[in-house]
Amino acid sequence: MGTLVELQAKIAELEEKLKAAQQFVVKREKIDVMSSEVVDTNPYSRLMALKRMGIVDNYESIRNFTVAVVGVGGVGSVTAEMLTRCGIGRLLLFDYDKVELANMNRLFFQPHQAGISKVEAAAQTLRNINPDVDIQTYNYNITTVDNFQHFMDTISTQSLTGGNVDLLLSCVDNFEARYAINTACNELNQIWIESGVSENAVSGHIQLIIPGETACFACAPPLVVASHIDEKTLKKDGVCAASLPTTMGIIAGLLVQNTLKYLLKFGSTANYLGYSALIDFFPTMKLKPNPSCDDSYCKIRQTEFSSKPKLITDDQKVEEEKPLHEDNNWGISLVDESLPEGDCKEEIATGISLAYALPRQDVDVSPGSASAADGINLDDLMAQMKSI
Amino acid sequence: MGTLVELQAKIAELEEKLKAAQQFVVKREKIDVMSSEVVDTNPYSRLMALKRMGIVDNYESIRNFTVAVVGVGGVGSVTAEMLTRCGIGRLLLFDYDKVELANMNRLFFQPHQAGISKVEAAAQTLRNINPDVDIQTYNYNITTVDNFQHFMDTISTQSLTGGNVDLLLSCVDNFEARYAINTACNELNQIWIESGVSENAVSGHIQLIIPGETACFACAPPLVVASHIDEKTLKKDGVCAASLPTTMGIIAGLLVQNTLKYLLKFGSTANYLGYSALIDFFPTMKLKPNPSCDDSYCKIRQTEFSSKPKLITDDQKVEEEKPLHEDNNWGISLVDESLPEGDCKEEIATGISLAYALPRQDVDVSPGSASAADGINLDDLMAQMKSI
Repeated sequence: MGTLVELQAKIAELEEKLKAAQQFVVKREKIDVMSSEVVDTNPYSRLMALKRMGIVDNYESIRNFTVAVVGVGGVGSVTAEMLTRCGIGRLLLFDYDKVELANMNRLFFQPHQAGISKVEAAAQTLRNINPDVDIQTYNYNITTVDNFQHFMDTISTQSLTGGNVDLLLSCVDNFEARYAINTACNELNQIWIESGVSENAVSGHIQLIIPGETACFACAPPLVVASHIDEKTLKKDGVCAASLPTTMGIIAGLLVQNTLKYLLKFGSTANYLGYSALIDFFPTMKLKPNPSCDDSYCKIRQTEFSSKPKLITDDQKVEEEKPLHEDNNWGISLVDESLPEGDCKEEIATGISLAYALPRQDVDVSPGSASAADGINLDDLMAQMKSI
Repeated sequence: MGTLVELQAKIAELEEKLKAAQQFVVKREKIDVMSSEVVDTNPYSRLMALKRMGIVDNYESIRNFTVAVVGVGGVGSVTAEMLTRCGIGRLLLFDYDKVELANMNRLFFQPHQAGISKVEAAAQTLRNINPDVDIQTYNYNITTVDNFQHFMDTISTQSLTGGNVDLLLSCVDNFEARYAINTACNELNQIWIESGVSENAVSGHIQLIIPGETACFACAPPLVVASHIDEKTLKKDGVCAASLPTTMGIIAGLLVQNTLKYLLKFGSTANYLGYSALIDFFPTMKLKPNPSCDDSYCKIRQTEFSSKPKLITDDQKVEEEKPLHEDNNWGISLVDESLPEGDCKEEIATGISLAYALPRQDVDVSPGSASAADGINLDDLMAQMKSI
């Protein structure tokens, strides 16, 4: 029991300890208007500097955008953190997993969060980092029938404008979830970016999917999907995929960088960008949709897109209106533009073969793009040949 | 004051609050031996899986290595976190700055750490994430005379083996500090990787520097350095550099990925790897040392290297022993191997010109490497030409 004095001493001690412990949960105050002021206390000064540097016209418009992140694991959690630190308007987080110590080899989650749901743990950390971001969490598996409908309703109504989200980022780790996202996005005409990291942890990719305009996930499915095999049967007992904080951090970085370029309209957004860690190789490609795609909404979006008046950009002019490389005295053609209409391809994980053969790749040969093994800068080569 | 009962209720309430607050400082227990066991409680299972996947022979040897990270800002803090989550043996952190809210647009630091020194704040978070890593902090500016000597002594004695650290990673944001690191590493024959991000936040690079074997930072200095201009005079009042969590996270990821490849001997380590965010371009290059380098220790290391017997790797055989591309019927040569001995070049930040002109670039044309604008895969092109 103790005397009054002893109890009061105990209270004082506890209050001291509480104060010390609470330093870890101190929150920064909300900020109404993003400022460019260069002071140590302004968390937005280095982002608003993108305007002064001539990179972005109106950085503060980032607050108008809503992004959905599906899958809050090794890639999704870092993706959500980057968007939060950039001051995105609203973030919708979808996952149904719990944090485990086995996740600690990737960035973001910390040991004290083990056992908490990933979306709740993420939201707690992210609101602490930037209380200006409106974070909504959805702790369910999007692939079940009921949840899928709720997922569709959410991404089509829960943006800051009340309509579709501005962009959906897929950071899931299995084909079933990718298929669910693909189905929803084709139906809702929702632009999204798919991402993936290989099971051996040393390669990954991102792929921008604009329904009807670029290949969707069903346009050239991995064999296991096209054959209707349950992918779970491919995984052996006691075998787990390898993962690295480096590869996942890089893929998240590329994903959010392209998200910022897309939303804030600067630079060019990659259609397909790969990363091969062993040799620091970053292939880029353009992927056209498959007119025989199994997804009926994909075909509807393709018809809509082909009947839309096209805005020709300077880049496209070079590719589509002029003969490829007018100074090409050798008649070399890298990309056969007379490809059959059904041509379509998809980069797939190592060890998985496609359900059908693809005639050839549609390679981006625009100047300055990192070339794939069979993509080269012809202009430069011609100049060199002539100088011999 | 209150009655005994009231005071006891107050104590119970405080104890409850303390318990809740302390969840944020719960530490995971140390782990003596890295295990491959696939259980949710094993923080190393997904890393040890790299062995099963055939990527790394002995992942657990990572515990034998010591890495120094100089500069714990936007790139350095994420670099330190990745190495910590990978279970590196010992980490030496150098910085003299404090955390500010203005740093919150990059990953890692959190608002409650504002005002604390970066190395202390980082060590606190990192020890919480992985108590198995031995983290040492050095809270000083390495460029002052006294500190520079301490810095030299530290990196040459504080590894787990008592000698040089296994690798030093430069994550600083100014030329003066890079020069100090360069001077120290040339004298100590210390291999290091330099990194940098541009002031407009949309490009960056990493560069592996092996004294005597590859170009050092002084081999082709930026004009401002070669002209002995104080770089501080270039910065305008009230103007701050832009930064993004994406670019910095990607550069940190590439830096640590190449660190892992170098230490654990898998894949190939990039000499120079650039990143241009606007167009998703990742040039690679090989940079030879400058025989007229201003750094006297660089020249000593060059002499040592040239007199060392060379281990010829398979890759080098192709480049050095055979004529370039035997099937080259057109006599095209991309890399003039009869370059004058003094050839040396350095990728520099936008808007900065070099102190002297460089004759031409030494481009890596090894198969599979991401080619720079003027680097192409000749074999593929020849095959295509022949098929016409």
